[in-house]
Amino acid sequence: MGWQRPDGRQPQELRSHRFQRHFTQFALGSVLAQAGQTQVLCTVSLKEGVPKFLEGTGQGWLTAEYRMLPSATRPRQEREFLKLSGRTQEIQRLIGRSLRSALDLSLLGERTLIVDADVLQADAGTRSLAITGGYIALVDALSALLQQGVLSESPLCHQVAAVSVGLIDGEPYLDLSYAEDVAASVDFNVVMTANGQFIEVQGTAEMGSFDRPTLDRLLDVASQGIQELIEIQQHVLAASHE
Amino acid sequence: MGWQRPDGRQPQELRSHRFQRHFTQFALGSVLAQAGQTQVLCTVSLKEGVPKFLEGTGQGWLTAEYRMLPSATRPRQEREFLKLSGRTQEIQRLIGRSLRSALDLSLLGERTLIVDADVLQADAGTRSLAITGGYIALVDALSALLQQGVLSESPLCHQVAAVSVGLIDGEPYLDLSYAEDVAASVDFNVVMTANGQFIEVQGTAEMGSFDRPTLDRLLDVASQGIQELIEIQQHVLAASHE
Amino acid sequence: MGWQRPDGRQPQELRSHRFQRHFTQFALGSVLAQAGQTQVLCTVSLKEGVPKFLEGTGQGWLTAEYRMLPSATRPRQEREFLKLSGRTQEIQRLIGRSLRSALDLSLLGERTLIVDADVLQADAGTRSLAITGGYIALVDALSALLQQGVLSESPLCHQVAAVSVGLIDGEPYLDLSYAEDVAASVDFNVVMTANGQFIEVQGTAEMGSFDRPTLDRLLDVASQGIQELIEIQQHVLAASHE
Amino acid sequence: MGWQRPDGRQPQELRSHRFQRHFTQFALGSVLAQAGQTQVLCTVSLKEGVPKFLEGTGQGWLTAEYRMLPSATRPRQEREFLKLSGRTQEIQRLIGRSLRSALDLSLLGERTLIVDADVLQADAGTRSLAITGGYIALVDALSALLQQGVLSESPLCHQVAAVSVGLIDGEPYLDLSYAEDVAASVDFNVVMTANGQFIEVQGTAEMGSFDRPTLDRLLDVASQGIQELIEIQQHVLAASHE
Amino acid sequence: MGWQRPDGRQPQELRSHRFQRHFTQFALGSVLAQAGQTQVLCTVSLKEGVPKFLEGTGQGWLTAEYRMLPSATRPRQEREFLKLSGRTQEIQRLIGRSLRSALDLSLLGERTLIVDADVLQADAGTRSLAITGGYIALVDALSALLQQGVLSESPLCHQVAAVSVGLIDGEPYLDLSYAEDVAASVDFNVVMTANGQFIEVQGTAEMGSFDRPTLDRLLDVASQGIQELIEIQQHVLAASHE
Amino acid sequence: MGWQRPDGRQPQELRSHRFQRHFTQFALGSVLAQAGQTQVLCTVSLKEGVPKFLEGTGQGWLTAEYRMLPSATRPRQEREFLKLSGRTQEIQRLIGRSLRSALDLSLLGERTLIVDADVLQADAGTRSLAITGGYIALVDALSALLQQGVLSESPLCHQVAAVSVGLIDGEPYLDLSYAEDVAASVDFNVVMTANGQFIEVQGTAEMGSFDRPTLDRLLDVASQGIQELIEIQQHVLAASHE
Repeated sequence: MGWQRPDGRQPQELRSHRFQRHFTQFALGSVLAQAGQTQVLCTVSLKEGVPKFLEGTGQGWLTAEYRMLPSATRPRQEREFLKLSGRTQEIQRLIGRSLRSALDLSLLGERTLIVDADVLQADAGTRSLAITGGYIALVDALSALLQQGVLSESPLCHQVAAVSVGLIDGEPYLDLSYAEDVAASVDFNVVMTANGQFIEVQGTAEMGSFDRPTLDRLLDVASQGIQELIEIQQHVLAASHE
Repeated sequence: MGWQRPDGRQPQELRSHRFQRHFTQFALGSVLAQAGQTQVLCTVSLKEGVPKFLEGTGQGWLTAEYRMLPSATRPRQEREFLKLSGRTQEIQRLIGRSLRSALDLSLLGERTLIVDADVLQADAGTRSLAITGGYIALVDALSALLQQGVLSESPLCHQVAAVSVGLIDGEPYLDLSYAEDVAASVDFNVVMTANGQFIEVQGTAEMGSFDRPTLDRLLDVASQGIQELIEIQQHVLAASHE
Repeated sequence: MGWQRPDGRQPQELRSHRFQRHFTQFALGSVLAQAGQTQVLCTVSLKEGVPKFLEGTGQGWLTAEYRMLPSATRPRQEREFLKLSGRTQEIQRLIGRSLRSALDLSLLGERTLIVDADVLQADAGTRSLAITGGYIALVDALSALLQQGVLSESPLCHQVAAVSVGLIDGEPYLDLSYAEDVAASVDFNVVMTANGQFIEVQGTAEMGSFDRPTLDRLLDVASQGIQELIEIQQHVLAASHE
Repeated sequence: MGWQRPDGRQPQELRSHRFQRHFTQFALGSVLAQAGQTQVLCTVSLKEGVPKFLEGTGQGWLTAEYRMLPSATRPRQEREFLKLSGRTQEIQRLIGRSLRSALDLSLLGERTLIVDADVLQADAGTRSLAITGGYIALVDALSALLQQGVLSESPLCHQVAAVSVGLIDGEPYLDLSYAEDVAASVDFNVVMTANGQFIEVQGTAEMGSFDRPTLDRLLDVASQGIQELIEIQQHVLAASHE
Repeated sequence: MGWQRPDGRQPQELRSHRFQRHFTQFALGSVLAQAGQTQVLCTVSLKEGVPKFLEGTGQGWLTAEYRMLPSATRPRQEREFLKLSGRTQEIQRLIGRSLRSALDLSLLGERTLIVDADVLQADAGTRSLAITGGYIALVDALSALLQQGVLSESPLCHQVAAVSVGLIDGEPYLDLSYAEDVAASVDFNVVMTANGQFIEVQGTAEMGSFDRPTLDRLLDVASQGIQELIEIQQHVLAASHE
Repeated sequence: MGWQRPDGRQPQELRSHRFQRHFTQFALGSVLAQAGQTQVLCTVSLKEGVPKFLEGTGQGWLTAEYRMLPSATRPRQEREFLKLSGRTQEIQRLIGRSLRSALDLSLLGERTLIVDADVLQADAGTRSLAITGGYIALVDALSALLQQGVLSESPLCHQVAAVSVGLIDGEPYLDLSYAEDVAASVDFNVVMTANGQFIEVQGTAEMGSFDRPTLDRLLDVASQGIQELIEIQQHVLAASHE
């Protein structure tokens, strides 16, 4: 018998997920994503132009900003102001890379999509929820751009979702809450596409180390969790308006 | 016949206001405040200690942080990083002063209440909505502190609310939306208590100037609007939970 | 019998004001403004170009910088270096707005006037003295630009001055010194034109609150004080050279 | 027949590695690490005290700083000043985590080991070389601390090394140079111990995505490369002095 | 026949110098120093404590801050914010070193004297004028501290003054104005005591280079100029008040 | 009998100097300069364009950056990150001025040479070693630019070197180590050309002051030391490759 999850979930069970589309009105896409107590507001905006290294290539770009509201955690955390922590930068780079892999950037023209992932409440798993929810906001944003005639063809080419999985007492547990995250000796964040391909694998031993068979089991659990999230995304996007 | 308001309101009519209490769970008080399209998430946290100038006095403090999410406006605005704009600093100082006037700080002990006002969507009036909604979050936070036994007596001594009023075509209009704000030649922000006393009056001629009778009429309209908001606050707080 | 002013002034009496024109030679206008112990060096410079939002409009701009020398106060204060305090930003925005209201910016062309208000000694009232003295430096700067042929028509359209008034023991006192400012429960800063119109009204209850009749009396005292300053400005400017 | 490596290496062949111990004299450990054209100066210093979250626990800490000299790349790159790039922060966090896993921090006392990894020349693979070379400098530093009597027992408990592996034309290539890195569609950085356990796995699809069998092959090649590096480290450390 | 000075001075003639003592009232010493068109406000303040490296030694310290008002030059210069230029840092370090050499710091106790040199108008020679005028403000500050009983014995042990000298057309010219400074190929700044000892010699070839005999002549002219300034300082300080 | 040097050198004897050319490969010139225990990596790079004040003049520029690795000193020193110390800025300005004097910048075209002087180990004399070693790297860089056809004529016109000299117990000592530097009451840094002309003289009394005859003796010792360094530079550069 293994470790008991605080909320009674099975080891390979996701938290309850909810995605409120069109949560705000001024961005092209706006989704309030919730996974248990974790809440991330994902919005997508467009600006003309691309970073220096893409100028003149005709290709577009997607970049992400990730930030926590100070009251997202208990106790309250100071806003990052004069510099971003390494953690924040790693996360926003990961979100950007992951959502770029959903797009054929050559169909975007020299424009930049900006994904803002603002964490309203943090109970672990914010980076993977930002990717999974950000994907939905991205789909809404691209629909708007097609409708507005800014784009004539959708650059969307892959559906992506992400999940965390951790090792507690030698066993893999899916979609950790904060209390579980603290107990885990190994943390994995995995990003995959709807057709089962990997985009990103990040695994870290916080304590000790892990062998190859353990790595394999962690990836199995992550893969299965992501496929469930892929279905949830499809279900949410099938609704005409939320 | 005067100017027609885009949303069909009467000149002295407030926008529809909504205050969702307990919007997030980790802060002591958390209110999603909405006035028309404007949305401000107001949360209240506590930290031990006070600013330098109060150390050893036994008195508490309240401070406010105000920030806009980048997608709160159309077009998207860059986050303030490295330095706060003068506008942001003015607003967070105003929110702090206004909500401090609701409290007897000597009953707080050497603790600091932090009001975070994060604008999720900005259609003008964010500073007055942050004060009016922040007051509700403050009441919830103080209740929690009394219940937790951190405080034995409530420091709450005044109910405060705020509103904007502007001069368009020589006539006062209450609670301007963004489109109206742009058209106004004079802007007033007024903060008052439930018993009709002024806490703050800030009036600025954006174009031209204004005479004393006009100033008097603007204050009349603001006073009446604030009394309505005071009643809405009381109604929201009377509900057992939201 | 009311409160006795430390320097023996009547409640509605200004401090002794002195304005030394052409205090330095390299700026277009340069005035050392003194009100009692308060000393502000106000200089006006011109630079080509306007802020982004005005480019291509043919209209000019005026902006202000306000700063205190470290030895302006007792004890010495650190220079603001990595960031400006909220107080400093509020003041320089106020100075800028107030002096812009003196000008028809469309007659300036796409140029920016910069008003530097450097406080050499601070005994309260620095922001209103910066406006009142800055107006004189501005007049000198515009004369120089007309003489140099940079401008063919003066953009000057209003004479403006500013003053502070505070409530001590329930009574209004004009043009507070630092010792008085500390004692006041309500502070007003008022900016007006020579023909009695308001540009800006900023009133704050530092302690308690204030009712409408008190607000009216404070504005009466401020208005009368500003009319005296308007006369002093005219007298100073009538002198051919200082 | 696969892709030809610019320097004629076999797909699973490391670059020539060289580690000059005691390259400078003032740090506790100092190793100039070279892998082909890549050169990283790894030094280890000690300071008293630990980060806030460890104070009072009796446990030590290890932290890393990673920086490139401006002339390490062609063309010259600006120094990072005012803020570190996300890339730099990711790398220095990875180096710190990896080398902490080599230590039993409870044997260090409340002291912090600082690993400085300064890249003198960058031809890809700097982060893994910093870990592999940093390990050698760490061993030398701990020997010095034991000899000086600062430590009575060595906190060293695992030998660690790191390597990169990339996917080019669908095949894994070990220890990429810069020209190869640019050509790779998938990049893995792997950190392991001498007994074949994983510390960190970071795999990113720069273009496209990768399936599970490919992931397995990449990890196989990385594991074998790390075991070779482990032997080189042992050989270098067996020499009495360099 | 040599080069003609724009203001008709002889090659070895100082500009007209004027030192207004007690220019402001809140600092311990305050001198408005003028040399021709150059104006520097030199104030001296005291704060308790010393830099880290002197704590516990019983010895005091003196530090200097040097800054230009933006309108001190034509055209206006931006304020230094976020970082000080190398020039500013060099100058304030020079002022600090020079005035420290006037004191026996062991008689100051663990206190820090702060010399603020704020340039109101810059027509070259600001650093040497800041030293020469700062010395006078320092004497006034020490008198005040003795009178207030903060110090029981004066730490003053040397009288110091400074001057610039430049090489134009191969000939030395004393106390250059801005127009002359631009024309000079070699610039020297020299700091000396009343008894003819050197504190600092800084000579730089802006164009070309200079031989040993030229160096000797430049130092001769500087030495003679400093002796005149020493006399002016004594004369100014002999006046009971200004 | 005077003071005994820790390493047994004669008072006017240089430390052992070594210059490894082509230490790294990606910069145009790269020299690892060593003087006793002091090690400075000097590299020279080129970038197109010149600072604002030279645009359109057809003339080039040379600028220097000086920085210490954190482990260059015992104990380790923090990296300069948010701001450069005054010392660092003075040194890099000195290196830049000194090496510019070696060049006819009009032959460089509108390009900027960047000299990076990174101190790997600091046992005093880093600034003069950076100049002396930087000169060699500069010669190599210019040769490369001639060979590449970027330049058609060499802008090199003077050979420059630098040395420090200090006063200990009233006697001059050449090329001080750190232990000696601490003991010296007067420090001189002198930069000269191969034909005995001065570029820069910087002399500072750290304690006390110095008279004219002492100044003369210090310059004599420095001049002789620089002539020896000039010969060493020529010898190193005469070797075909290191």
